[in-house]
Amino acid sequence: MRVSQRAANEMRRVSFERNIIKHAEGSCLIKFGDTHILCTASIEDRVPVWIRHSGKGWITAEYSMLPRSTKERTRREASTGKQNGRTLEIQRLIARSLRSVVNLQELGERKIILDCDVLQADGGTRTASITGAWVALYDCLSYMQTKKLLTRKKVLKHHIAAVSCGIVNGLPLLDLDYEEDSSAQTDANFVMTDDEGIIEIQGSAEKKPFSQEELTSLISLASRGISHLIAMQKLAIL
Amino acid sequence: MRVSQRAANEMRRVSFERNIIKHAEGSCLIKFGDTHILCTASIEDRVPVWIRHSGKGWITAEYSMLPRSTKERTRREASTGKQNGRTLEIQRLIARSLRSVVNLQELGERKIILDCDVLQADGGTRTASITGAWVALYDCLSYMQTKKLLTRKKVLKHHIAAVSCGIVNGLPLLDLDYEEDSSAQTDANFVMTDDEGIIEIQGSAEKKPFSQEELTSLISLASRGISHLIAMQKLAIL
Amino acid sequence: MRVSQRAANEMRRVSFERNIIKHAEGSCLIKFGDTHILCTASIEDRVPVWIRHSGKGWITAEYSMLPRSTKERTRREASTGKQNGRTLEIQRLIARSLRSVVNLQELGERKIILDCDVLQADGGTRTASITGAWVALYDCLSYMQTKKLLTRKKVLKHHIAAVSCGIVNGLPLLDLDYEEDSSAQTDANFVMTDDEGIIEIQGSAEKKPFSQEELTSLISLASRGISHLIAMQKLAIL
Amino acid sequence: MRVSQRAANEMRRVSFERNIIKHAEGSCLIKFGDTHILCTASIEDRVPVWIRHSGKGWITAEYSMLPRSTKERTRREASTGKQNGRTLEIQRLIARSLRSVVNLQELGERKIILDCDVLQADGGTRTASITGAWVALYDCLSYMQTKKLLTRKKVLKHHIAAVSCGIVNGLPLLDLDYEEDSSAQTDANFVMTDDEGIIEIQGSAEKKPFSQEELTSLISLASRGISHLIAMQKLAIL
Amino acid sequence: MRVSQRAANEMRRVSFERNIIKHAEGSCLIKFGDTHILCTASIEDRVPVWIRHSGKGWITAEYSMLPRSTKERTRREASTGKQNGRTLEIQRLIARSLRSVVNLQELGERKIILDCDVLQADGGTRTASITGAWVALYDCLSYMQTKKLLTRKKVLKHHIAAVSCGIVNGLPLLDLDYEEDSSAQTDANFVMTDDEGIIEIQGSAEKKPFSQEELTSLISLASRGISHLIAMQKLAIL
Amino acid sequence: MRVSQRAANEMRRVSFERNIIKHAEGSCLIKFGDTHILCTASIEDRVPVWIRHSGKGWITAEYSMLPRSTKERTRREASTGKQNGRTLEIQRLIARSLRSVVNLQELGERKIILDCDVLQADGGTRTASITGAWVALYDCLSYMQTKKLLTRKKVLKHHIAAVSCGIVNGLPLLDLDYEEDSSAQTDANFVMTDDEGIIEIQGSAEKKPFSQEELTSLISLASRGISHLIAMQKLAIL
Repeated sequence: MRVSQRAANEMRRVSFERNIIKHAEGSCLIKFGDTHILCTASIEDRVPVWIRHSGKGWITAEYSMLPRSTKERTRREASTGKQNGRTLEIQRLIARSLRSVVNLQELGERKIILDCDVLQADGGTRTASITGAWVALYDCLSYMQTKKLLTRKKVLKHHIAAVSCGIVNGLPLLDLDYEEDSSAQTDANFVMTDDEGIIEIQGSAEKKPFSQEELTSLISLASRGISHLIAMQKLAIL
Repeated sequence: MRVSQRAANEMRRVSFERNIIKHAEGSCLIKFGDTHILCTASIEDRVPVWIRHSGKGWITAEYSMLPRSTKERTRREASTGKQNGRTLEIQRLIARSLRSVVNLQELGERKIILDCDVLQADGGTRTASITGAWVALYDCLSYMQTKKLLTRKKVLKHHIAAVSCGIVNGLPLLDLDYEEDSSAQTDANFVMTDDEGIIEIQGSAEKKPFSQEELTSLISLASRGISHLIAMQKLAIL
Repeated sequence: MRVSQRAANEMRRVSFERNIIKHAEGSCLIKFGDTHILCTASIEDRVPVWIRHSGKGWITAEYSMLPRSTKERTRREASTGKQNGRTLEIQRLIARSLRSVVNLQELGERKIILDCDVLQADGGTRTASITGAWVALYDCLSYMQTKKLLTRKKVLKHHIAAVSCGIVNGLPLLDLDYEEDSSAQTDANFVMTDDEGIIEIQGSAEKKPFSQEELTSLISLASRGISHLIAMQKLAIL
Repeated sequence: MRVSQRAANEMRRVSFERNIIKHAEGSCLIKFGDTHILCTASIEDRVPVWIRHSGKGWITAEYSMLPRSTKERTRREASTGKQNGRTLEIQRLIARSLRSVVNLQELGERKIILDCDVLQADGGTRTASITGAWVALYDCLSYMQTKKLLTRKKVLKHHIAAVSCGIVNGLPLLDLDYEEDSSAQTDANFVMTDDEGIIEIQGSAEKKPFSQEELTSLISLASRGISHLIAMQKLAIL
Repeated sequence: MRVSQRAANEMRRVSFERNIIKHAEGSCLIKFGDTHILCTASIEDRVPVWIRHSGKGWITAEYSMLPRSTKERTRREASTGKQNGRTLEIQRLIARSLRSVVNLQELGERKIILDCDVLQADGGTRTASITGAWVALYDCLSYMQTKKLLTRKKVLKHHIAAVSCGIVNGLPLLDLDYEEDSSAQTDANFVMTDDEGIIEIQGSAEKKPFSQEELTSLISLASRGISHLIAMQKLAIL
Repeated sequence: MRVSQRAANEMRRVSFERNIIKHAEGSCLIKFGDTHILCTASIEDRVPVWIRHSGKGWITAEYSMLPRSTKERTRREASTGKQNGRTLEIQRLIARSLRSVVNLQELGERKIILDCDVLQADGGTRTASITGAWVALYDCLSYMQTKKLLTRKKVLKHHIAAVSCGIVNGLPLLDLDYEEDSSAQTDANFVMTDDEGIIEIQGSAEKKPFSQEELTSLISLASRGISHLIAMQKLAIL
């Protein structure tokens, strides 16, 4: 049995609170159990140098943990003077994932920045960030439609959501919390669309190699979890 | 009349939510109207080099604005690679203020770090930070007492709270919001104790010099606002 | 009695040496007793981004202590790779103070940079910097008038000078030297104009809160000291 | 047909040159076609703080591209002052992969650093780095055995090698070169052991989501390529 | 007798391998004994700000040691976040030397960047870098002539090569290896042209002052070594 | 004729002012014409890691130009966040030069830091720094002798001084000012002892290669200038 009393294929309690920051064009406070992340979407009129004059838009992401979102206080990256490798890796993943479901041509020469700030962490912060950032992005694009900044309807091609799975004590589990994640022998993150297309898959053997069969069982758990998350996204934006 | 319909000597709606971050030894979400700040207090066993082996403790503070806490998105300091002058100035002020009411000798060789992260900004973030950090610090010290880390009762010598005042269109006003702050001709921040002792005073002529009489009227507004804030702190920690 | 034999309301010996650096448009070596600061004013043709095309000018300041200006050698900020919080706070104060007495509209789209480099420190470096920078700025503006870069006469609206005061062993004292500053229970800096308008006031309780009455007595000392400094400035620019 | 005339499941020409740097405890120049990487293994006596006094060893990796290893010259990270996100992500992957097949307990309190410097790049630099670093690590461990720094035989638990696969114009291909990688709709990297255990899997939809079936076909290509690479490693260390 | 069995005025075995990096406009792997350096020349269309619109070109250099090019592993400058003084000094020397023999006016508004990456170090890396960079530069200029980017023939005015000499145990020696360099009492580097013109001379007394006569004997050794190097360059570019 | 009316072998007016900074163990304001440099010597009790427990001392130097020491204002290195290549090269030269005449064994495990801050620059700042730093160092060592920190007399083995020479319009000149330096075809710096031993020699062909004969004539000018400087040092320390 899991410490949290959840079944192996059961998600933690998930919630979305929209419009939580008055200044942002889109914002969402997402919770996966005790993991709480504040996601905002902001529009900027400048695009990166390499797509200037292409008529195309761009999407980037930034990820950060508040110092005391973690069990032991983590040093603030603004104070150490640089973002560490884990931070950069996660924000590259968030941006790549969301970019893959946006019709960048339709955005016009604008950048949308997705900020994911972890207020409290208990495992799964990168997957919750992606799931919550989708909602902030959705609201930002709706705002742009209201303001006539977008001309076509279908700028956002799919829902996406993300979840982590892992093998803990030999058992495949869905949506690991921090304790489970720390003792997992294999740990994997999945980003998928509402029609079960895979956007990103990242699996690591933490303790011993895993087999193709184990991978398949993790994919199947992830697929179930992501369906649930996307159903909740749909309710949240009703 | 103020845009917010407040009287010249009226504070915005203030609220405190304690124990908002499960990992922290003390935490408080403070709101001064639309200014929302998450304050946490964390204990560390290392003290700065210059007080090692003195038996004394220390208190520091860090301040940061989430990128979209502001009207226009602000660049993340972790990404620019350094904290700007305003940030450093504010965190020095927060630390100095709280340090002045703690009996550092009683802390033992420990450091308490006060993190003030602005989720949403609408003026007065430094004063709200100080007022909320006091509550996080209070809870942290209570936790230490429960854990027998402190032996004496009176580690915290006073309540303190802080508020901004300013002269806008010739009129002295209490607790400026962002719009008022932007057009103020004089802008001042005050930190005071529950027995009206002054801890910090910082006043700047933004547009033209101010007189001693004007300063006196600002101090008197501040004194009123701070009494109100300290009364609310007392309710919050009941 | 003060160690220096000064009366409570007596300034240290003050002197101004103008035109000390041949390349600068304005320069002044100011001395408050053993505090020696080299101030220069330099014209640049670029203004900050946010006022470009406004026709307005701007004033900034940089402050630095030579490594051995202090009793113990201080690490060079160029070598540590960043300016610390105290440095940034002081240079923001110097710039804000001088900017408040210049008619920026009349400057044209130009920036004047005030560099204050502390050659030897014995307390009061920020206030001596402001007082000396005013002279360097005055000479720079005269140079600009000679070169027909300015069309109107009254670009500089006021004299300003600055001084520190504090409460030491319960007594309010004017113009603290390093030893006095280290043992002060309250420490305050004042910037005022020649007609007693207040430009900046910054007071901190170092050891215990101070009262309004104590603040009033410090303001009155400061006012006296600043009158003296402005009288000396007037002599220096004759 | 592939531009290089290779079959879909055909690797580029691979070679290993050992002992190429006289100072290093292990070194290998690995080539995957026109991708050339110099891998070295270095022993250090210091381990990271968090495993000190645990008796355990550690393995880290650093990855860098020479400025002109790329088609257009890339700015040197030593000169920009920081390693970018891609670099950090790759060196985390290399270290994690190699660490997973070493018995860290047997290393003693020592760190082995794997440096992978790309002399010439034509796609697949991260997978070639892992494959070559294994050989450098093998030689380093042999050196340690010779020097009696290791007591047990089985410090290295498995061979590992890595390869990239992708879907290009709808076809799954093994070992992408730069041109293929740039136009792939899905791009994946695999790290596996000599008994087909999976160590790392990272797949990204660059243009449209991919299906589980597509993933399976990529795994099967990777498995074939990695068997070939490990067979070549075995020859190289004979 | 020298440890390497060389005569006092004998160079180590020198070799040049051209066109070693397929992407670069010019490249050369130069070896002075066990010192191995990869030199590339890259063309960029941007020149430094201060020569823009002058029609002139520019030449810069970057120098770096791979971490394990040295006996003990050296920390990677990309990871420490800055290039140290020795690196900056060497790359300034390389650039200055090569710039002195190029007709910058004939280059057009282009920059050539010479990257010298030390794969293996055994003394004399800066002088080998200059000698090898000349060949990479030569090939780059030939490429530009082929592409009709240069109109005149004589862009490169001279051959240059460089060598170190030193006084070891009282004896002047040519082309010091690492061991000799470490124990030299005087150490000097020379850059000269094919007609014995001096481009750079840098001599340091490591242990005791040297005399004019000693300097003369070092110049004469250097002159002999450089003649040999230039003869080898001529063979290499045949 | 030189613009300054000096003969080819004539130094600018040189002066030394000792004990100019009250906190420093040694200090000297040196002037070579309009080049003014403040040199201080500071004792620290920590030596670099690599000589710890060797009983030996060490000498380092730091060099910096005040922003407005130059004709056009130079950006402050503390503000750009790093010391540039020229600065690092100069401070390495100053330290190496002074270290070569100190008996480091006699210093004990202490470091002396020589700070050379250029107040006003008109060519020759590095050579004036060395010449002035010698005096600051001399006073620092005397202070140490007075305080019984040194046991032996002969810690300082030689006087040293430094001067620049160059070939301008075909003529060898001594002690170049800024204008001469800018138009020199060859520029060289020399550091020598009181018995004409050479400590450092650095010569660069700025425009065309120079010959051995030209080098000899520069050495002979330098030797004359340095004799003069050392005579003045001797007067200064009487």
